[in-house]
Amino acid sequence: MLRTYTKQFSRPQFIRSLATSPAIPKTQKAIVFYENGGELKYDTQFPVPKPKPNEILINIKYSGVCHTDLHAWKGDWPLATKLPLVGGHEGAGIVVAKGSEVKNFEIGDYAGVKWLNGSCQSCELCENSYESNCAHADLSGYTHDGSFQQYATADAVQAAQIPKGTDLAEVAPILCAGVTVYKALKSAKLKPGEWVAISGAAGGLGSLAVQYAKAMGFRVLGIDGGDNKKKLFHELGGEVFIDFTKEKNIVEAIQEATNGGPHGVINVSVAEAAISQSTEYVRPTGTVVLVGLPANAYVKSEVFSHVVKSINIVGSYVGNRADTREAIDFFSRGLVRSPIKVVGLSELPHIYELMEQGKILGRYVVDTDK
Amino acid sequence: MLRTYTKQFSRPQFIRSLATSPAIPKTQKAIVFYENGGELKYDTQFPVPKPKPNEILINIKYSGVCHTDLHAWKGDWPLATKLPLVGGHEGAGIVVAKGSEVKNFEIGDYAGVKWLNGSCQSCELCENSYESNCAHADLSGYTHDGSFQQYATADAVQAAQIPKGTDLAEVAPILCAGVTVYKALKSAKLKPGEWVAISGAAGGLGSLAVQYAKAMGFRVLGIDGGDNKKKLFHELGGEVFIDFTKEKNIVEAIQEATNGGPHGVINVSVAEAAISQSTEYVRPTGTVVLVGLPANAYVKSEVFSHVVKSINIVGSYVGNRADTREAIDFFSRGLVRSPIKVVGLSELPHIYELMEQGKILGRYVVDTDK
Amino acid sequence: MLRTYTKQFSRPQFIRSLATSPAIPKTQKAIVFYENGGELKYDTQFPVPKPKPNEILINIKYSGVCHTDLHAWKGDWPLATKLPLVGGHEGAGIVVAKGSEVKNFEIGDYAGVKWLNGSCQSCELCENSYESNCAHADLSGYTHDGSFQQYATADAVQAAQIPKGTDLAEVAPILCAGVTVYKALKSAKLKPGEWVAISGAAGGLGSLAVQYAKAMGFRVLGIDGGDNKKKLFHELGGEVFIDFTKEKNIVEAIQEATNGGPHGVINVSVAEAAISQSTEYVRPTGTVVLVGLPANAYVKSEVFSHVVKSINIVGSYVGNRADTREAIDFFSRGLVRSPIKVVGLSELPHIYELMEQGKILGRYVVDTDK
Amino acid sequence: MLRTYTKQFSRPQFIRSLATSPAIPKTQKAIVFYENGGELKYDTQFPVPKPKPNEILINIKYSGVCHTDLHAWKGDWPLATKLPLVGGHEGAGIVVAKGSEVKNFEIGDYAGVKWLNGSCQSCELCENSYESNCAHADLSGYTHDGSFQQYATADAVQAAQIPKGTDLAEVAPILCAGVTVYKALKSAKLKPGEWVAISGAAGGLGSLAVQYAKAMGFRVLGIDGGDNKKKLFHELGGEVFIDFTKEKNIVEAIQEATNGGPHGVINVSVAEAAISQSTEYVRPTGTVVLVGLPANAYVKSEVFSHVVKSINIVGSYVGNRADTREAIDFFSRGLVRSPIKVVGLSELPHIYELMEQGKILGRYVVDTDK
Repeated sequence: MLRTYTKQFSRPQFIRSLATSPAIPKTQKAIVFYENGGELKYDTQFPVPKPKPNEILINIKYSGVCHTDLHAWKGDWPLATKLPLVGGHEGAGIVVAKGSEVKNFEIGDYAGVKWLNGSCQSCELCENSYESNCAHADLSGYTHDGSFQQYATADAVQAAQIPKGTDLAEVAPILCAGVTVYKALKSAKLKPGEWVAISGAAGGLGSLAVQYAKAMGFRVLGIDGGDNKKKLFHELGGEVFIDFTKEKNIVEAIQEATNGGPHGVINVSVAEAAISQSTEYVRPTGTVVLVGLPANAYVKSEVFSHVVKSINIVGSYVGNRADTREAIDFFSRGLVRSPIKVVGLSELPHIYELMEQGKILGRYVVDTDK
Repeated sequence: MLRTYTKQFSRPQFIRSLATSPAIPKTQKAIVFYENGGELKYDTQFPVPKPKPNEILINIKYSGVCHTDLHAWKGDWPLATKLPLVGGHEGAGIVVAKGSEVKNFEIGDYAGVKWLNGSCQSCELCENSYESNCAHADLSGYTHDGSFQQYATADAVQAAQIPKGTDLAEVAPILCAGVTVYKALKSAKLKPGEWVAISGAAGGLGSLAVQYAKAMGFRVLGIDGGDNKKKLFHELGGEVFIDFTKEKNIVEAIQEATNGGPHGVINVSVAEAAISQSTEYVRPTGTVVLVGLPANAYVKSEVFSHVVKSINIVGSYVGNRADTREAIDFFSRGLVRSPIKVVGLSELPHIYELMEQGKILGRYVVDTDK
Repeated sequence: MLRTYTKQFSRPQFIRSLATSPAIPKTQKAIVFYENGGELKYDTQFPVPKPKPNEILINIKYSGVCHTDLHAWKGDWPLATKLPLVGGHEGAGIVVAKGSEVKNFEIGDYAGVKWLNGSCQSCELCENSYESNCAHADLSGYTHDGSFQQYATADAVQAAQIPKGTDLAEVAPILCAGVTVYKALKSAKLKPGEWVAISGAAGGLGSLAVQYAKAMGFRVLGIDGGDNKKKLFHELGGEVFIDFTKEKNIVEAIQEATNGGPHGVINVSVAEAAISQSTEYVRPTGTVVLVGLPANAYVKSEVFSHVVKSINIVGSYVGNRADTREAIDFFSRGLVRSPIKVVGLSELPHIYELMEQGKILGRYVVDTDK
Repeated sequence: MLRTYTKQFSRPQFIRSLATSPAIPKTQKAIVFYENGGELKYDTQFPVPKPKPNEILINIKYSGVCHTDLHAWKGDWPLATKLPLVGGHEGAGIVVAKGSEVKNFEIGDYAGVKWLNGSCQSCELCENSYESNCAHADLSGYTHDGSFQQYATADAVQAAQIPKGTDLAEVAPILCAGVTVYKALKSAKLKPGEWVAISGAAGGLGSLAVQYAKAMGFRVLGIDGGDNKKKLFHELGGEVFIDFTKEKNIVEAIQEATNGGPHGVINVSVAEAAISQSTEYVRPTGTVVLVGLPANAYVKSEVFSHVVKSINIVGSYVGNRADTREAIDFFSRGLVRSPIKVVGLSELPHIYELMEQGKILGRYVVDTDK
């Protein structure tokens, strides 16, 4: 029968009018800047935006802070930001209003703002679930006001669905960092039981990658420097640690530890030489995944070996709706932990300072209420 | 750079207000019925619908007539139709208005109404480009007024993009019949050079399937009955014809002609026995595709052989946005021809009669202006 | 450089002459029968076979006993067995001799006899690593004397490579039962985090399947009957248990527990109705895997639902060389345990009796020395 | 039933003794060299080799001449050649003897010597049909005497099966050049109807690639220089030609012609800059295939774009047994033509001279009888 499986999915009835929860204020707290590199103004009277017919309005409770936010503020990248701009793209909160065409969220649902706020949904890339690569992507905290405010709008189709009861502070970094490393692991096209090397394994992205890789049934080799990192790596479930500060021949060490090289490599590290080196130690027919975004860097691979070993180098860019749902699901099931440090939204300028000085360890999350 | 590839896609600027072409009438010609099996009223004063924020309004020029339209009218299926209902789901025309959120169509563009008018875009199936299988699918000519009228609304994300200059009458059947067989061929996961068997090869769906298969680089074996069908099959590019009215042992004949069985089988025929038989002659590790929709029929496959030969039986249901674009592209490039018979919209009741009597040969297309 | 990666694989030097270990006897202990269903003779003077140029001679230490061995003895299947025949196809032991062309085994290596003793290696199926489906397969304990003897020959290319130090009694059932369920899980094409249902989850094959599924990152729903089975299932890592002796509506219960149906179903159960039922509860676009081999049974699937849900039914038959290596690797890493009961080879006739009476619980392994 | 499909494959009965045709001479004509770069001796009394148990002896009628043969003679590559050596790895002829274990060839069959003479068949790569990448590959005309002689041995499992009646001179270049470009096209993972760019489209490999691409249903854009090349390209079925001697902005021109960049790029050209440039014009989520083997060259790809566009760079190295069978099948069906120039074997030294001078147009094939 045509719809015998309809009941398999529990989903709210369609409500076609603009729905809102009782008390949405007119103004709110936000961090806003009016020119790239200009003042990061903590505005306690910033206007609350109104959702369009296809949008939801989310009362953001917590937002992660990502290096991309720093780049957006400084205007480092060739794509111009919206100005004035509220940054942030790892925001978790509660739906308080929705446009007339929104079918997949109800008032009171948990929802997340992520890097991809919306896409055209009708180009060849969107059609094939590559919406992250859409040339008309609308980006939170970049071309669309983001999550460094108490109330943010988000395209309902792209907004993350977060199960009720989830810790909204801890899930925030999953919305970008978690999704990104999870998608990178999927892009390596590994089978459970195969080896994956993670370059930068004990850093912010790396430590999430180790946990996802473990939960996906892969054997994890980590590359990083120092005994503290080694200890953390093994606590997260990693199997073999290569300390680049101690190992003389990294290529040989990795190939020996994995009986011929890892089947996949996740380059969360942004060191150009390390990225190119991964083409040397990857297993024949294996896959090198590029995911970190160093400026003006090139991956170089020797053509002869590339052909004879028939290796792949593939780019992975955040994740699509399915990747987001899946990455959150691993987190919700307790298979991935997200170590965070919570501070008030007003402290964002100080976090940017620490970032510029390279003094950030772990992930900062801002409480938009403070 | 972040958007260096933006220019690769030519796409209109976003226009956020409701746009309309100058002269949209208030009423129009339509065929409408008020109860299943009731009068098919040719109403020349039927109200023209208004597009919602996410919809376009299409001035339908031509619409194909499909057996599904007959089933919808009669209420044969377990899913209730909308009532009153305007049927039709193979409509080709010109965009004359668009909602405020529509970004991918401009007034004057060619557009098509297809079976899937809209889907939730946020369930696990939609997220992975299986929107045809969405449990909340909105279906043209079934749960949404369709293309047997001069002006129809369509969700802009799902509406078919048709290149300007296309013959709107000939492209109409591509929007459902063409997409369906093209998707079925994709579902067989064949490589160019492999054999595909098409059961019912010289019928309406079959003759489209033969042409798509040929254009995709497959070797085509057709199964049907009679010398006229054989002649048509070879004219369309088919390679080997098995006449079921003459062949004593069809399984052996097919396996011999294909040196071990076809790698894929497309069951456009709705004969239950023929469908089950295809599990016998398909090549080991090959794929049987179910695409026709016989009522109350079962495919039966002997477990022992199914395991030892490691075959697949897969269902294929219309197509998604990408399948639609690709199927139209093969048509636009002249690789697939769609033989049609054009009559006035007012003659639809007569076409249904012919359908019920099994007297339809080829595809009828109605001109909505007449 | 052309071979810079050669060193990645540690592999012995080629030895092109027939190599043997010092003391291979002329005769040995074996269970042999001369006609199907005839006496199972325990012969202590059975001649030791000689390996051909492409074969190894394995001193079998232990061999699992499988229902297929019973069928082979009785001659139940349409393919004639070799006669006289030594049965057995789960034999683990030590290489004691090798033919002139054998490059991948050294004297003293651990090796396993498995169901597929050899294949043509040059048909379309073998070329694409589907050697289990080769029409010229040579089958251990069926068309080739098997592992119910102290010394058995095996095609070196197909013989299982077993890491030194492995418990040869415990690994024996992995060579067929383990490989079979592992391959079935791969055939479901699941992603880590997706749901797999295992029908017959607490039986011999099922309990291995649960462990492999868990190690591969899947969420496991088991179907079986009784509280003891439920307890065992959860001990093995299973998440949701459906007791078919208690549940009124199995389809609904499974779909509810998995939020829409499992993405894959592994039918190790051989109950015909249960197999067909799995096509009802599998998730849209999901995969039903057939792996058990009931006699004269058919899987039946309603065509309309099969199409609209776009589901797959795929057969999975033992496993190829890669599947074998991988299945052993999961076992060697301690992720899968194989509960066995070891008895002497001479007791094989009694085990067959128990099998015929349906009194076997768990897996019997025979010690060929006794 | 277990083997009901056996009859699907016509295959000779197993013959387990060494079989030979009546009159194999003891000596033969061959071109042999005793040190790299040394004399290319035309020896009319060179001993005829004897096949091992797993080998066939082929009376080579014709052999293609490839640049690799020149490199092997000169010793250009880091892997040492066998010495003395008979070169050649595109040899087509007739089976005249076979070893005791050979099951897949009969005396009188047509067979081909190709680059991969044999592989270990038991490493992880061979198990998964990546035998071309096997670290223990035995290479014709490099580590194993090749096809520049009248009688050559070949591992029966790897030797090419050539249909009787095939033109043995014309098929010779298919055995390496044809297989290589066909495999490269498969490695791009394109769907019929998608765009493939071929860099060096009118050269020896390129002109074969254009024909295979066309037969596989792809739309072909060729890149090369000059009006003669353009003319040839279109004659072979190419659709859009980009003349690098005339086009100012190749990246833009290619992206415009293909509405966003080709889905795949086949780099048969060995120009380092052109290879890296292909990472710029390839479509988002598309695949750049490396197949040419320039010495000491690197492919360079900008990391930021690589990630944001999520492109792939994959190496493709000759082809496996299945690729070989398929490439020959396209040729046998008349879909690919191989323009050759036939000369006597004794003229090989002169062909090497022409190659070194870059004066070779098209493919030379030597007649081993002359």
